Amino acid sequence: MDLLNTYLIYLIPVFGLVGIIVMAIKSAWVTKQETGDASMNQLAGYIADGAMAFLRAEWKVLSYFVIIAGILLAWSGTTVATSSPVIAISFVIGAFLSAFAGYLGMRIATKSNVRTTQAAKTSLAQALKVSFTGGTVMGLGVAGLAIIGLGSLFIVFYTMYVKNTGGDVNGEAMAKALDVLAGFSLGAESIALFARVGGGIYTKAADVGADLVGKVEAGIPEDDVRNPATIADNVGDNVGDVAGMGADLFGSYVATMLATMVLGREIVSHDNFGGIAPVLLPMVIAGLGLIFSIVGASLVRIKKETDSVQNALNIGNWASILLTAVATYFLVQWMLPNTVMHLTRDVIPGTTDLKPGSLEFTKNGVFGSILVGLVVGTLMSIITEYYTAMGKRPVMSIIRQSATGHATNIIGGLAVGMESTVLPILVLAAGIYGSYFFAGLYGVAIAAAGMMATTAMQLAIDAFGPIADNAGGIAEMSRLPEEVRGRTDNLDAVGNTTAATGKGFAIASAALTSLALFAAFVGVAGIEHIDIYKANVLAGLFVGGMIPFIFSALCISAVGRAAMAMVEEVRRQFREIPGIMEYKARPEYEKCVEISTKASIREMVAPGLIALITPIIIGFAFGPEVLGGLLAGVTVSGVLMGIFQSNAGGAWDNAKKSFEKGVEINGEIYYKKSEPHKASVTGDTVGDPFKDTSGPSMNILIKLMSIVSLVIAPHLNSADNTNKMMQKQEKVQSMNVHQIHVDKKI
Amino acid sequence: MDLLNTYLIYLIPVFGLVGIIVMAIKSAWVTKQETGDASMNQLAGYIADGAMAFLRAEWKVLSYFVIIAGILLAWSGTTVATSSPVIAISFVIGAFLSAFAGYLGMRIATKSNVRTTQAAKTSLAQALKVSFTGGTVMGLGVAGLAIIGLGSLFIVFYTMYVKNTGGDVNGEAMAKALDVLAGFSLGAESIALFARVGGGIYTKAADVGADLVGKVEAGIPEDDVRNPATIADNVGDNVGDVAGMGADLFGSYVATMLATMVLGREIVSHDNFGGIAPVLLPMVIAGLGLIFSIVGASLVRIKKETDSVQNALNIGNWASILLTAVATYFLVQWMLPNTVMHLTRDVIPGTTDLKPGSLEFTKNGVFGSILVGLVVGTLMSIITEYYTAMGKRPVMSIIRQSATGHATNIIGGLAVGMESTVLPILVLAAGIYGSYFFAGLYGVAIAAAGMMATTAMQLAIDAFGPIADNAGGIAEMSRLPEEVRGRTDNLDAVGNTTAATGKGFAIASAALTSLALFAAFVGVAGIEHIDIYKANVLAGLFVGGMIPFIFSALCISAVGRAAMAMVEEVRRQFREIPGIMEYKARPEYEKCVEISTKASIREMVAPGLIALITPIIIGFAFGPEVLGGLLAGVTVSGVLMGIFQSNAGGAWDNAKKSFEKGVEINGEIYYKKSEPHKASVTGDTVGDPFKDTSGPSMNILIKLMSIVSLVIAPHLNSADNTNKMMQKQEKVQSMNVHQIHVDKKI
Repeated sequence: MDLLNTYLIYLIPVFGLVGIIVMAIKSAWVTKQETGDASMNQLAGYIADGAMAFLRAEWKVLSYFVIIAGILLAWSGTTVATSSPVIAISFVIGAFLSAFAGYLGMRIATKSNVRTTQAAKTSLAQALKVSFTGGTVMGLGVAGLAIIGLGSLFIVFYTMYVKNTGGDVNGEAMAKALDVLAGFSLGAESIALFARVGGGIYTKAADVGADLVGKVEAGIPEDDVRNPATIADNVGDNVGDVAGMGADLFGSYVATMLATMVLGREIVSHDNFGGIAPVLLPMVIAGLGLIFSIVGASLVRIKKETDSVQNALNIGNWASILLTAVATYFLVQWMLPNTVMHLTRDVIPGTTDLKPGSLEFTKNGVFGSILVGLVVGTLMSIITEYYTAMGKRPVMSIIRQSATGHATNIIGGLAVGMESTVLPILVLAAGIYGSYFFAGLYGVAIAAAGMMATTAMQLAIDAFGPIADNAGGIAEMSRLPEEVRGRTDNLDAVGNTTAATGKGFAIASAALTSLALFAAFVGVAGIEHIDIYKANVLAGLFVGGMIPFIFSALCISAVGRAAMAMVEEVRRQFREIPGIMEYKARPEYEKCVEISTKASIREMVAPGLIALITPIIIGFAFGPEVLGGLLAGVTVSGVLMGIFQSNAGGAWDNAKKSFEKGVEINGEIYYKKSEPHKASVTGDTVGDPFKDTSGPSMNILIKLMSIVSLVIAPHLNSADNTNKMMQKQEKVQSMNVHQIHVDKKI
Repeated sequence: MDLLNTYLIYLIPVFGLVGIIVMAIKSAWVTKQETGDASMNQLAGYIADGAMAFLRAEWKVLSYFVIIAGILLAWSGTTVATSSPVIAISFVIGAFLSAFAGYLGMRIATKSNVRTTQAAKTSLAQALKVSFTGGTVMGLGVAGLAIIGLGSLFIVFYTMYVKNTGGDVNGEAMAKALDVLAGFSLGAESIALFARVGGGIYTKAADVGADLVGKVEAGIPEDDVRNPATIADNVGDNVGDVAGMGADLFGSYVATMLATMVLGREIVSHDNFGGIAPVLLPMVIAGLGLIFSIVGASLVRIKKETDSVQNALNIGNWASILLTAVATYFLVQWMLPNTVMHLTRDVIPGTTDLKPGSLEFTKNGVFGSILVGLVVGTLMSIITEYYTAMGKRPVMSIIRQSATGHATNIIGGLAVGMESTVLPILVLAAGIYGSYFFAGLYGVAIAAAGMMATTAMQLAIDAFGPIADNAGGIAEMSRLPEEVRGRTDNLDAVGNTTAATGKGFAIASAALTSLALFAAFVGVAGIEHIDIYKANVLAGLFVGGMIPFIFSALCISAVGRAAMAMVEEVRRQFREIPGIMEYKARPEYEKCVEISTKASIREMVAPGLIALITPIIIGFAFGPEVLGGLLAGVTVSGVLMGIFQSNAGGAWDNAKKSFEKGVEINGEIYYKKSEPHKASVTGDTVGDPFKDTSGPSMNILIKLMSIVSLVIAPHLNSADNTNKMMQKQEKVQSMNVHQIHVDKKI
């Protein structure tokens, strides 16, 4: 036990390594599966090539960004004592691993898709096995890389700045190690934002473009091989829903751990682990979560055609969550000291009293916070499912409103989306309250870390959806028998539900992580309050609240513009290439792929820069307290807009899907091609950029802006001190020449 | 001058009286105008009857509310020293005058409409004169009643609680007088909320219902006498855009003055007016604004058919604003003392030093803040016009996106609405910063008071729009010559522009007023900070941010439901009453009027109660600081949602209108009935509840919640003190039994 005590820090990357080894084994198994006939392989090849072309184009742009940002970081690292130019290296590694995680996921997804189609010729059980194993490869890859990266870099920086210098584990030495480590998270989250936004624009421009001409104008089904945009559409699933999501969750996972570590530094805990148990805890929890995700994933299987795929996924998911929760209880008992803990900054200087509003807590309190996190995550998933599932009141209300036309369908969906913010916000507010009650600000952070522990399993479930979707696309394009398509449709439908609940989970964890980062920022920036009663802080709150609106506007108008270009290209091909409709001529798929690629790369820049640059401008121009107001505004407004857009989009989507089996409105049954169905297609199209471009980007936006603030916090701290000194001087002067004021002001 | 010094307080209601006298003269002139033929009179009669039926139904429900709330207020007034049961009387008078202001406006509007139609047979100049005089009657009535009511009650309460008791004009005595006066504002704003929401649901349910069946399905023009919903539609203009808006602006005007007065109490100014100059100032500014509104209104006239109506309105508007600004300069010089001022609570107790973040200011600073308010209001109007005007980039982008269908039109409009929040928020943030820079929190309040000074003129311009709209409706229904309808259409088009700019102005003033109320609340509640770094305050911020979303969801889904009922009724009448289409049978207009009336009365209750009850629950359950967080969240999110929805709706509306004259998209010209036009009609229909129901309600929502908080603040203050005492006791105990903590926490 003593040995474990000393070497636990070195064990952390080993968890990640286990994940990567299992991943490699599973990946080899997927690769070994049959790939079907030549036509299927050709289509799969188009998709894989298109996806790689996008990633290459994206990487080219992002490499410029990484180089410039890295140089700036290295330079800024030299200017304050609690940072170092090494932060630039940390940043580059984070950016690289985030991009690599996305690539890994996409590569396995573009292999699994066609193999799932082939497996679907045999049985549903086999199709699930292939597609879910593909998803598992991605989940393990993302989580494994994150733990290896963060864990190893922490060992290096801890050794460099704390152990070798004999520095204070609660003091400046550790602060420096963690500041440099924050560069890793900054790199990961920046790439995540660009990947999510770029991928989101790509996939929805292709999807909307393909649907508007293909389904609505030409009257051919989804994924028809005659549609020039169909390959771009399938590529989109891979670059948006797979590569984008992989980078996204890599970033979230790292940010959550980092925020908890930064707050953990401030907790005095001398018993074990050289006093750094609260810092190590989130990484060890993540490591355990990874191991139990492997266990959970092994439980996902069905036997008969009639078995429920959703149940199989639920069993695996719950097993991994419950096992992790139980293990975490013993972990917390073992790692944390028996004494009452609190943040060092909560103590009134020179006394042992806590400042008003601070909190003392115990190790049981920490476990309590973790449980709060799990409950919040679960409730958020349930609420999200209620608001987006077929047959429930919200979706039914949209269906009914489709009977009176396009406009009422849209009004209905917008109302559902807005209404759907209520319960999640109440749950979240209670979660903030509860996790704070149990373990103060550290509790808020560790609650998020608990939620994110089984990221590998969550991601496996999330990623299997787009793989199944692609498999269905290949089946349709290859004109395989009904039966095959039926099996992939079954998987795809389950994937839609898991995508929705995954979003609820993601927004909850993002909100808690942002709050933890916010708290960490306050500590590092050395401010006491963020008082919204001050006019300048309130102005910051307003500006912050506006950022998610302009960010969403840029995302959805980018999709609108790119989709219009796509529509015109598809119309042109139908007009100018004779024989497409009779399967005699092959459409120019690559033209559509190119439109999506170019548009998404071009349009991802502006929103990305807004997220990165705003905190820097506000922080340096107006100081850390106004920046705190900005962050609070971004977080609240971003969470609301994220929930609103994701749920409205999900509800519209399922309202449309409901028509496939026929729905009853006022005693009449309506099917596809009916007028109400057409109205529901409009809603679905509006919802596409909402739920797959701007909505999920909100999570990254709020986290990224918090991380940027955290990274610049040491600089603001010194800048702020200078300001304070100047104010003091000014005050002394003003007391001498008080009368001057009267004339000086206007 | 000495005499004026003493009696200025009694002069304030006289300003209001002048307004009412001029109103009576103008009203008599309108009544004297010709009313046209029997058919016109019959239609106008239907409209007037429908409008009165709605008001009666609304009043019935609201009278229950006023009685219950009044009793609660009277009871609560007995429980703290700084309030009094008299607040209930103040509340009832406020509620009554607000409802009466709406009634006055509606009565003159339902007289002016048919007289404008008749005048339009002669000339555009005459039609403008009648309709604008109708608007002026309403503007003068609202402003006059507000000044008489607030001014007289202030005289009474000041005499009762301050003068007769010899109480401190900066202390508890004046605080009590103003707390009781706050009841007036609470009454006014509560009625305003119900009137705005109820009226907004009424008008849009009728409008959407009439359009969806009439225009889209039956293919008959707007305001066709064969459409069973056409009378309800025209009634809607009166109850929503006139009565609702009248009560709304009455409430805003009063709230702005009150907030400034509450902050004004805290300013030590011993020179003149018994030390209450800063309290009197906003009312005197309003009085001057009323007088100069009369002057400005007299300048609104045209001579030739080709003269620009917009120019005439602009001249009148600018004249009243500039005259008021100049007069305000001299007023401030005369009324305010020559010394440096600040809020009394900004002083560190026992010293003459200001707390950090506080501000000293001079009378020139106060005038500076007023100018900031005027500049902010003007910029907001200009920005709003840019985002909603025909021919400008935003509307043009929606038109282009109409070419690819309903969905892209919607995406385009949503993006424009979201984007349109950026500049207003930056202007507003700068305005907060600037007005605070010049005169601290009092500056923020007086900036809003400056903006609202010419409310009478603003309202005259706003109200003339729906009168002209109604006049056009009557012309169409009576099948008068093209020429007549052309003239009313000209007036209506100008009315649409002024409606949009008026909304920009309204949201800016609401935001500043809310901040002033927020500051007043902080003072009365006796809290030092509202620290969003505390977990519970942050939770409050989240919940507050969510309120505008659920409020909007309730409003727009109410419109959706009511519109569907209307659609079904209109379809039924077309089906079951033979001869409607051939003008042989009269549709059952009263059935449609009834649907709108019942639906709006039923649906206005839930959103209204949310606004009223939330601050009470949060305040008493979690204390004033969390309530402060809630208010900040509501204000930021409400301003954003207000701008987003109003501008998206306005832009969709004008994108649709652009098709009337034909628009060019990709080299082709499209007119009405083309596919892109149909898509634009969908956008317009979605935008209707956005811009006329939920969007403008946001202003009232944020102000009402702040006023409720202000009214309950004295109670929270004492409750808070009790809490603090309990906490202190607990702390003493916990220091004795510190070890217990370890086991007590989970």
